[in-house]
Amino acid sequence: MPAYSDKVQKLIKELAKFPGIGPRSAERMVFFLLKTDEQWTKNVAELLVDVKNSVFFCDVCNNLSEAETCHICRSDNRDHTTICIVEEPKDVIALEKSGGYNGIYHVLLGALSPLNGVGPQELKIAELERRLQNEHISEVIIATNVTTDGETTALYLQKLLKPYTVRITRIACGVPRGSSLEYIDQETLACALAGRQELL
Amino acid sequence: MPAYSDKVQKLIKELAKFPGIGPRSAERMVFFLLKTDEQWTKNVAELLVDVKNSVFFCDVCNNLSEAETCHICRSDNRDHTTICIVEEPKDVIALEKSGGYNGIYHVLLGALSPLNGVGPQELKIAELERRLQNEHISEVIIATNVTTDGETTALYLQKLLKPYTVRITRIACGVPRGSSLEYIDQETLACALAGRQELL
Repeated sequence: MPAYSDKVQKLIKELAKFPGIGPRSAERMVFFLLKTDEQWTKNVAELLVDVKNSVFFCDVCNNLSEAETCHICRSDNRDHTTICIVEEPKDVIALEKSGGYNGIYHVLLGALSPLNGVGPQELKIAELERRLQNEHISEVIIATNVTTDGETTALYLQKLLKPYTVRITRIACGVPRGSSLEYIDQETLACALAGRQELL
Repeated sequence: MPAYSDKVQKLIKELAKFPGIGPRSAERMVFFLLKTDEQWTKNVAELLVDVKNSVFFCDVCNNLSEAETCHICRSDNRDHTTICIVEEPKDVIALEKSGGYNGIYHVLLGALSPLNGVGPQELKIAELERRLQNEHISEVIIATNVTTDGETTALYLQKLLKPYTVRITRIACGVPRGSSLEYIDQETLACALAGRQELL
């Protein structure tokens, strides 16, 4: 029997289904488990089930939520006429931390990535269109990442949303606060120049 | 509340305790969980607890075992006078698959790594000495990895075991089967030359 026991093999196989975890990492995780505290394992197992059973995607914007609708969509203090489109719930957290936004969100739960087989159907784009049809939205801010996939998604959305009578904007690309120009790549600098703003 | 909910944050924190899993990977794991099947989550959680509760390290050699003593240590068909020292249970599996060994094992559960704070006390070295004192061992084969840490461990063991009246050997370092010399690194070639064997 020159292999792990069935149980160990099965656990390795299942853990390897997590993104970014290969069979080798899964193996290391199992060994860590075997060497560690029994109570910890129980805690993690319970947390997995608990989070899965109590955390959902918001019915409206797909942000993480422990209720049907997330606290941002429910809030009366937010501007419900401006919608900010982001790729993932973590982007909502990043933008909220910035303190620079008081509208609502729409989380796509991904970005277009033709090479990885992610098309518009895999993202919450139909839901976005439905919101534009039913809610009173005046501005859509496309805040997908400034990466190849994020830019592809932004371009796609820009074309898709053209028929709607809303202002469509894209977050600025430029030199990050605190950076010296000499360390900034050429494309970002070109972007920063093209997006230069009048000083009043 | 610009952050994940307490539960999600806690799960990310706990998952990030696994080796090789950082907060970012843990975050991706949680998102995968939220997007995936509920039953799968339950299965993984149960498997974690099941494996932790039913798989142990062998009392004698520290190999993985679902009984107190592993099937190799219990076997009457193995040569109990030859002990092969390896770093991890997966090395036992690799050597068993090779079909080239019929002795017993001693798993150190790691390798010396001074930079990472792994000293002899962190490994099952005292247990190895106890076995050499109590069992009738005639040969010790040091089969730690041929890496810096593995070689350090081999050197340490070589010195430590000198007082015992056993034959101490080290697995050969050389050109792997199926390789062209032109693609083999210099150190391995030097090793292969130094370890050349008489053709009879």
